[in-house]
Amino acid sequence: MHVAVLLFAFALTGTTLALDNGLMRTPPMGWLAWERYRCDIDCENDPKNCISENLFMDMADRLAEDGWKELGYVYVNIDDCWSSKQRDDQGRLQPDPKRFPGGIKKLAHYLHNRGLKLGIYGDMGKLTCMAYPGTPLDKIELDAQTFADWEVDMLKYDGCYSNAMEQELGYPLMSKALNATGRPIGYSCSWPAYQGGLPPKVNYTQLGEICNLWRNYGDIQDSWDSVLNIVDWFFENQDALTPAAGPGRWNDPDMLIIGDFGLSMEQSRSQMALWAIMAAPLFISNDLRTISSGAQSILRNEMAISINQDALGIQGRRIVKEKSGIEVFWRPLSKNASALLFFSRRTDMPYRYTTSLSKLSYTAGSYKVFNVFTDETASLKDSTEFVVSVNPTGVVMWYVSAPAKFNLRQFYQGGTLHGRVYDDREENAIPRVFL
Amino acid sequence: MHVAVLLFAFALTGTTLALDNGLMRTPPMGWLAWERYRCDIDCENDPKNCISENLFMDMADRLAEDGWKELGYVYVNIDDCWSSKQRDDQGRLQPDPKRFPGGIKKLAHYLHNRGLKLGIYGDMGKLTCMAYPGTPLDKIELDAQTFADWEVDMLKYDGCYSNAMEQELGYPLMSKALNATGRPIGYSCSWPAYQGGLPPKVNYTQLGEICNLWRNYGDIQDSWDSVLNIVDWFFENQDALTPAAGPGRWNDPDMLIIGDFGLSMEQSRSQMALWAIMAAPLFISNDLRTISSGAQSILRNEMAISINQDALGIQGRRIVKEKSGIEVFWRPLSKNASALLFFSRRTDMPYRYTTSLSKLSYTAGSYKVFNVFTDETASLKDSTEFVVSVNPTGVVMWYVSAPAKFNLRQFYQGGTLHGRVYDDREENAIPRVFL
Repeated sequence: MHVAVLLFAFALTGTTLALDNGLMRTPPMGWLAWERYRCDIDCENDPKNCISENLFMDMADRLAEDGWKELGYVYVNIDDCWSSKQRDDQGRLQPDPKRFPGGIKKLAHYLHNRGLKLGIYGDMGKLTCMAYPGTPLDKIELDAQTFADWEVDMLKYDGCYSNAMEQELGYPLMSKALNATGRPIGYSCSWPAYQGGLPPKVNYTQLGEICNLWRNYGDIQDSWDSVLNIVDWFFENQDALTPAAGPGRWNDPDMLIIGDFGLSMEQSRSQMALWAIMAAPLFISNDLRTISSGAQSILRNEMAISINQDALGIQGRRIVKEKSGIEVFWRPLSKNASALLFFSRRTDMPYRYTTSLSKLSYTAGSYKVFNVFTDETASLKDSTEFVVSVNPTGVVMWYVSAPAKFNLRQFYQGGTLHGRVYDDREENAIPRVFL
Repeated sequence: MHVAVLLFAFALTGTTLALDNGLMRTPPMGWLAWERYRCDIDCENDPKNCISENLFMDMADRLAEDGWKELGYVYVNIDDCWSSKQRDDQGRLQPDPKRFPGGIKKLAHYLHNRGLKLGIYGDMGKLTCMAYPGTPLDKIELDAQTFADWEVDMLKYDGCYSNAMEQELGYPLMSKALNATGRPIGYSCSWPAYQGGLPPKVNYTQLGEICNLWRNYGDIQDSWDSVLNIVDWFFENQDALTPAAGPGRWNDPDMLIIGDFGLSMEQSRSQMALWAIMAAPLFISNDLRTISSGAQSILRNEMAISINQDALGIQGRRIVKEKSGIEVFWRPLSKNASALLFFSRRTDMPYRYTTSLSKLSYTAGSYKVFNVFTDETASLKDSTEFVVSVNPTGVVMWYVSAPAKFNLRQFYQGGTLHGRVYDDREENAIPRVFL
């Protein structure tokens, strides 16, 4: 038996439960109701925006008819406030009868018929965060089976109204219960966000074995401050977080708010680019019925999506943090390529940042550079000094293609490998880690 | 002699210096270089954006050819970093010879030929904020005459490198010196911003007599946080500030950053609307050569501009501050009309705010309402409950026309009239002041 396989087998036996659904080998993409629609249940006065089957069918229509699906945005995810306040007479969760008169299974079929997938929401506690019926320990198997019976494709399992000990039992138990249904159901765990998001409280090795993605940190809000707060936390803690990510297991910095009310176009490009560097799930939360063409063009950027969806699934890192407010991020990609991101935290005017690929620790050679948001291309020697003009709160993002060798363990020098097997990634270009 | 005239004459004799240039009876409008272009003097590497006569001629071309001038945007204002580091051999300020080879007078003619006006920048101290030659006390008369000789139409007189005593002498002295040139030169004083912006340190009665506008507070930056910070300060201190404003004398919350990098469309509408409520000078600081159509449509909104430019010149107030994050602002306008502004500080989703005109203390009657940003109109009884849906960080702005009586002194109950004569304003609708 090959050594790597032996190591992998050993890692598995060290866990009590394993997620083996084969799903989400690249970060999941789709639409999620929460940030934009919250717990709006006022269908009488706000029929177009309330949490109801109509809202999800509307979004499904847009995803299927407007070309989003072909780009990879296939999940349509319900969040909190979908259910009745009471379980049914057999103890099962049931949707609010007025807002989901057709039921969840019919909604799932509506989506499946359009090539889309349905996500649903539960909570590891007596109540959900908005005080709808939760899924405590004794309801986990029942609810997992209910979701499977409804032909649901993904579950976001939140953590309000549960304590650390219940979560310690419940999150793995739900993983096992979902697997036991026989239906592949993507599993999003809010667990680490309730544990502060960092080791040693959070065991990312275990999370990678039981969940497909997990929320590490607080909810995003519709503001640039919120995006910056999330970005700060994820990159300040990149040594702890990046080793946890990989095919089938993703850190989730929360939804894309592009197309909502709080971000400028520059800031929208920045969120898209930073989420691509982070190998983050791309769940849009906006109104696809009225989204502006500017926001659409950012969310539909095929190069940004392809960087996000890179098959290696290595989460990128911040490699430079200048006093000027310029930061550089880097992510290794398949085919010996990489993504480079120049980001400005300034709030004055475009900043002309001078550097070279060799300063960014690229090895000697000539590289091809593709500008993700302008489609410009260039050839660049490692030693050539270049200037990128980065707008305030904006980015310049490059796809850099060139062959080079690297030492993977050097990339992870600040983090821990958590016993994971990286032998299929060792031929990528990788710069020296600055941070 | 009429009593009001007597009072007015008395007020004048109580001051040492008087600004009597007849300018800026409505808030000045135009373009100002600072926020967008700062002290970029690198014409070699950044020729399109450096502080040079080309930049101001470019912006003049845009204002004159793209219809901005007709909307009222007529000033083209130079800020810091325009001058040579040395005065000339006669001790006069001179522009940087490489960046302004034609000189300021020629630039002024270029603007005047296009129906525009030129503003220039000086500093009450040994150096300007960016360390170019300042205009200390002994240079005031010389520099005022130089500006007049150049046919300059406005002066922004900053306050770096001067102390409180010098400012106390210098700002009135410059006012007198400008008047003495015989050329009408609009006079923007940064003085109050250096004194904390509030009485008793700042004497707004005196400012209104010597300056056409004044910067009360810190510089705006290209971010929504900066806009909010400015808005907070101006409305938290509205009792002290609103009585100071009127025809020829304006509080200046600083430039419009609409069309730059940091504001979403919602936030751009909010800045335009809040600046209109504040009767603020409208100085755009962006790149008019590349501005988006969305930003243009906001800056060109004729109803917002007409509210800003209302002949009464009464600065509006915040009248409601809800725990929900909704705030209501109000400004009395000519012809017994008023502007109502609903603003959301929320960062989640559109908020449905229920109120009525009578709750906002409008007197009984039927009003016509014009929505500034959607062009919708409606008739509304004072007692009718209505719902406005306000987007996160966004506004709904109404022009409300209807006759009603009000008690002006009640409007200023929290402030001080500073001995000013308001007898021409007493027929306007006015609600009870909530804050």
